[in-house]
Amino acid sequence: MSIDNAVRRVRDLIGERLSTSPSVLDLHGQNESYYAPTPPDAVATPHSTEEVAAIVKICGEEDCPIVAWGTGTSLEGHALAFNGGICLDLMEMNKVLEVHPEDMDAVVQPGVTRERLNEELRATGLFFPVDPGANASLGGMAATRASGTTAVRYGTMRENVLALEVVLADGRIIRTGSRARKSSSGYDLTKLMIGSEGTLGIITELTLRLQGQPESITAAVCAFPTLDAAVTTVIETIQSGVPMARIEILDPVSIRAVNISGDMTLPEKPHLFIEFHGSQAGAKEQAETFGEIAAGNGCEGFEWSANQEERNRLWHARHNFYYASLKLQPGCRALSTDVCVPISRLAEALLETAEEVREAGLTAPIIGHVGDGNFHVGFLIDPERPETLETAKRLTHSMNRRALRLGGTVTGEHGVGFGKKPYMTEEHGEGYAVMAEIKRALDPKNILNPGKVVDIN
Amino acid sequence: MSIDNAVRRVRDLIGERLSTSPSVLDLHGQNESYYAPTPPDAVATPHSTEEVAAIVKICGEEDCPIVAWGTGTSLEGHALAFNGGICLDLMEMNKVLEVHPEDMDAVVQPGVTRERLNEELRATGLFFPVDPGANASLGGMAATRASGTTAVRYGTMRENVLALEVVLADGRIIRTGSRARKSSSGYDLTKLMIGSEGTLGIITELTLRLQGQPESITAAVCAFPTLDAAVTTVIETIQSGVPMARIEILDPVSIRAVNISGDMTLPEKPHLFIEFHGSQAGAKEQAETFGEIAAGNGCEGFEWSANQEERNRLWHARHNFYYASLKLQPGCRALSTDVCVPISRLAEALLETAEEVREAGLTAPIIGHVGDGNFHVGFLIDPERPETLETAKRLTHSMNRRALRLGGTVTGEHGVGFGKKPYMTEEHGEGYAVMAEIKRALDPKNILNPGKVVDIN
Ligand SMILES: Cc1cc2nc3c(=O)[nH]c(=O)nc-3n(C[C@H](O)[C@H](O)[C@H](O)COP(=O)(O)OP(=O)(O)OC[C@H]3O[C@@H](n4cnc5c(N)ncnc54)[C@H](O)[C@@H]3O)c2cc1C
Ligand SMILES: Cc1cc2nc3c(=O)[nH]c(=O)nc-3n(C[C@H](O)[C@H](O)[C@H](O)COP(=O)(O)OP(=O)(O)OC[C@H]3O[C@@H](n4cnc5c(N)ncnc54)[C@H](O)[C@@H]3O)c2cc1C
Repeated sequence: MSIDNAVRRVRDLIGERLSTSPSVLDLHGQNESYYAPTPPDAVATPHSTEEVAAIVKICGEEDCPIVAWGTGTSLEGHALAFNGGICLDLMEMNKVLEVHPEDMDAVVQPGVTRERLNEELRATGLFFPVDPGANASLGGMAATRASGTTAVRYGTMRENVLALEVVLADGRIIRTGSRARKSSSGYDLTKLMIGSEGTLGIITELTLRLQGQPESITAAVCAFPTLDAAVTTVIETIQSGVPMARIEILDPVSIRAVNISGDMTLPEKPHLFIEFHGSQAGAKEQAETFGEIAAGNGCEGFEWSANQEERNRLWHARHNFYYASLKLQPGCRALSTDVCVPISRLAEALLETAEEVREAGLTAPIIGHVGDGNFHVGFLIDPERPETLETAKRLTHSMNRRALRLGGTVTGEHGVGFGKKPYMTEEHGEGYAVMAEIKRALDPKNILNPGKVVDIN
Repeated sequence: MSIDNAVRRVRDLIGERLSTSPSVLDLHGQNESYYAPTPPDAVATPHSTEEVAAIVKICGEEDCPIVAWGTGTSLEGHALAFNGGICLDLMEMNKVLEVHPEDMDAVVQPGVTRERLNEELRATGLFFPVDPGANASLGGMAATRASGTTAVRYGTMRENVLALEVVLADGRIIRTGSRARKSSSGYDLTKLMIGSEGTLGIITELTLRLQGQPESITAAVCAFPTLDAAVTTVIETIQSGVPMARIEILDPVSIRAVNISGDMTLPEKPHLFIEFHGSQAGAKEQAETFGEIAAGNGCEGFEWSANQEERNRLWHARHNFYYASLKLQPGCRALSTDVCVPISRLAEALLETAEEVREAGLTAPIIGHVGDGNFHVGFLIDPERPETLETAKRLTHSMNRRALRLGGTVTGEHGVGFGKKPYMTEEHGEGYAVMAEIKRALDPKNILNPGKVVDIN
C-alpha cells in the first residue's frame, strides 16, 4: 500500500493521462492565495465517470490521497495536495450533456466552466446565474458552494444545483436528486455534497437549474460620500422589497483597481454597482425606487444604463477586479478573505474592518456582494516584506472573529479549505464533530482531500 | 434496558407532562391517512431544549424508540409509533422567540404553527410563505421538507430555513447554520436535518427566512375545457418567465369539493387558481401576460380579483380542500399521494393518472402545485368496501412508478415516512445505502423514529 503503487496502477489504467511531469505537477501545485506551491505526486485526467470510479477505488486500496481539481481558483488552499497523492484534474470531462429548455435545466460534466455554459446557452434564451469572480469549473463551484454577484436574486450553487452524480470514496457511483424541482424523498444528499470541497465524493455530473434571460436589464453605478452611506442604501433597498439582481459595494481602493482594469474613470469614492432584471416597466420601476433611496443617502454622480455594452464593461471590470487589484502593487500576491453577516450587522462589520485596514496601513481593497451581507478584503502581500503577510493574517483573524461575534459565518462563499479550518469549532461547536462523523462514515480511510474542511484522525 | 424503564425515568424528569392516559395515547396514535391507529407507550411534552436532550439521552440508554410529534398531519405514517416507545409532543414549545424585521428573519420554537407565526408577523409587513394545506407545526414542516401553494415563487422549507437547533440521538445539542444569508462553512447540516423526518435529530428551534408582503396581489380563477389545456397553460406561463406566486390545478372532482367547502359555485371543470405578487404595475403586467396565454388555450370564465376578501375565500377553500373532499363521500377516509416530475412531463404524468382513476371508477380528486411539477391524488376510501383501499394502493403504486419513469420523485413534499419507503431503492439506487450510512453514523442505536425513511438493521 503506497502512493507509488497507486500512481503505477492508475498509469496502467489511463496511460499518458496520468502525468508526473514536473511542469504538470507544478501547475497543479499552484494556488491563488499566499500558500507555497505544493505539487501532488501525479496528475490524473479522467475522461469518464467510470474512470474516476476506478481511480478512486485504486487510491482507496493503496491509501493514496486524492484531490479533485477544477480550475484551481479556490482561495483557502482547498485543492493543494498537502499530503501528496494524486490530483484528479476534471477539466477534460467538459461536455454540456443535455439542455432542456422546456424544463429550464441542463446536465453538464464538472469541467465545464460557467462562461462556457453560458455561451452554449445563449441561443436558448436561458442562462446560469451563479458567477464567482473567476471563470471557475461548475464542479469546483458546486464543491465550494460558490456564489457571486447575482446570489441576492438567484441564489448560490446551493439553490441552483438540482442533482449530482458523485463517485464516493469506495468507488461507488451515486445519483442524488432528480430533474424534479422539489422532493421530500429522503436525506438531501445533493446539498450534503455541495460545499463538501471534494472531501466526501467526486462530482462527475451536475444537473443545473437555469433562469430565463430577463426581458430588460438596467444597471447603475453610484458614488457615495462614505462607506456608511453606501451600506445604509443597501439595507434600505433590501427592506423596500426591491428585487435587485446584483448589488456590489466597492471601496475607494477597489475603485482604483477597477479604473485600472476596466479603463474607467470613476471617482475614487465608495460605490455601489447595481443591476435590476425584469420586464421593461418592472426594471424601470425598481431602478426608480432605488434612485430615491440612494439620493436620500447623499448619492453623487448617479449613472443609469440600459445599454448592454456599457453594462458589460462594468461587470467585466468587477469580475476582473481581483487580477486588477494585484496591479495596484506590482509583484505582490493577495490574501483574499470572505465573511458574511446578517444584513443588520453589515455596516458594523464592514466599517470596523475598513478602520482596522486603514490603521494597519496595508493596501487592501474591500468589495462585496453586500445584498447577502457578504464582503471580501483582498490584502496585498509584498513577498519582500514578510510583515505584510503577518499583518494581513492578523486582520483576517480579526475579521473572522468579528463575523462570528455578529452572528455570521467565517466564509460566505469561498469555503473552508485549509485556511478557515481553525474557526470551525468556534463557528459550529459540537456541529463540527458531527461533520467529522459524517466524513468518517463516508470516507473512513480519509483519502478524499485529506486535511481540508474537517479532520477525522 | 426497556421502554418501561425509559417511561419511568422520563416521568421522574418531567412529572405529569409524561402521560400514559389512553385518550392522550390514542390522540398520538392517529393519522390523516388510512393507517390503523398506533398509540405510543407514552407521550412526553417537553418545555425546553434541555428537557428534550435529557429525554433523548434516557431513551438512548434504555433503547427506547422516540417519535417526534408536531400537529400529526403527515400523510405517510411518519409520526406513528409502529415500534412503540415515547412520542415527543413538541406543541408546548411554541414561542416565537425573536423577530428581526431588519434582517427579515425570525427565530421560533418547533411547536409554532405556520398560521400562528403569520399572525404574529402581521404588523411587521413580513410573512412566512410556506403553506402546506394543514396548519402544521414549523418543526414538522422542516422535518418533512414541506411546501405548499407558494413554493413556485418562494421555495420550500429547504429554501426558507436558515438555521436549526437540533438534539441528536445521544442528547448532544447542535446549532446548524446562522442568521447570515449564505455560507460555505462546512457540510450543510441544516439541509441534512430538513426532510429527515425525526430520524436524525429532534428540531428544537428554527431560524426562518421571511418575505416582505408584496405591495400588490392579484388572483384569478379560470376554467378550461380539458385538463390538458390547463396543464399547457401552466407550462407556457412558466416558460414565459412570469413570476407566479401561486398556480394550482384542480380537476372537476376537486372543484366539486371546493364548491362544497367554500360555498362557491364554480363550474365543475378543470381549473387553475393563480396569484401574482409584485408592485401595482408588476402584478398587473404579470396577470395580463397570463391572461393572454390562458385565452390561447381556450380558457373560459376568467375572473380576476385584487380584492382581498375574495382572494382569501379562494385560498381558504383551496387550503380546506382535503377536509372538504372527505365530504364528497361521508364516512370515507383518504389516501393522499404526492409525486413531482419535471415540468415537461407534467401533462403525461397527470393525464395518464386521471385516465387510470377514471377507469378504476374511484372518487379521487386530483389537485396540485403544478408550477413545481407537483400534484396529489386524494383517493377516497370506503372503510366498508376494502377493495377501494386495494384499488387506491394499486393506483398509487402506478403513479409512483410513472413519476420515476418520467425522471421525477415519488414525493414532492409529503415525505417518505413509512408509505414511500418501498420506492426508495428504485428512486435513489446506491444513494439509499448512503442514507443508511448517515443514519447509522448519527443514530447507531436507531432510536429516532425507527422504521421511517431508511432501515439500518
Ligand atoms: C479572482 C477570483 C475571484 C473569485 N470570486 C469568487 C466569488 O465571487 N464567489 C465565490 O464563491 N468564489 C470566488 N472565488 C473562489 C473560486 O473561484 C471558487 O471557490 C470556485 O468555485 C472554485 O472553482 P474551481 O473550479 O477553481 O475549483 P478548484 O479550486 O479547482 O477546487 C476547489 C475545491 O473543490 C474541489 N473540487 C473541484 N472540482 C471538484 C469535483 N468535480 N468534485 C469534487 N470536488 C471538486 C477541490 O478538491 C477543492 O477542494 C474567486 C477566486 C478568484 C481567484
Ligand atoms: C389537509 C392536509 C393538507 C396537506 N397539504 C400539504 C401540502 O400542501 N404540502 C406539504 O408539504 N404537506 C402537506 N400535508 C402534509 C403535512 O401537513 C406536512 O407533512 C407537515 O409538514 C407535517 O407537519 P406536522 O407538524 O403535522 O408534523 P407531524 O405529522 O407531527 O410529523 C411529521 C414528521 O416529522 C417529525 N417531526 C415533527 N416535529 C419534529 C421536530 N420538531 N423535530 C424532528 N422531527 C419532527 C415526525 O416525527 C414525523 O416523522 C398536508 C396534510 C394534510 C392533512
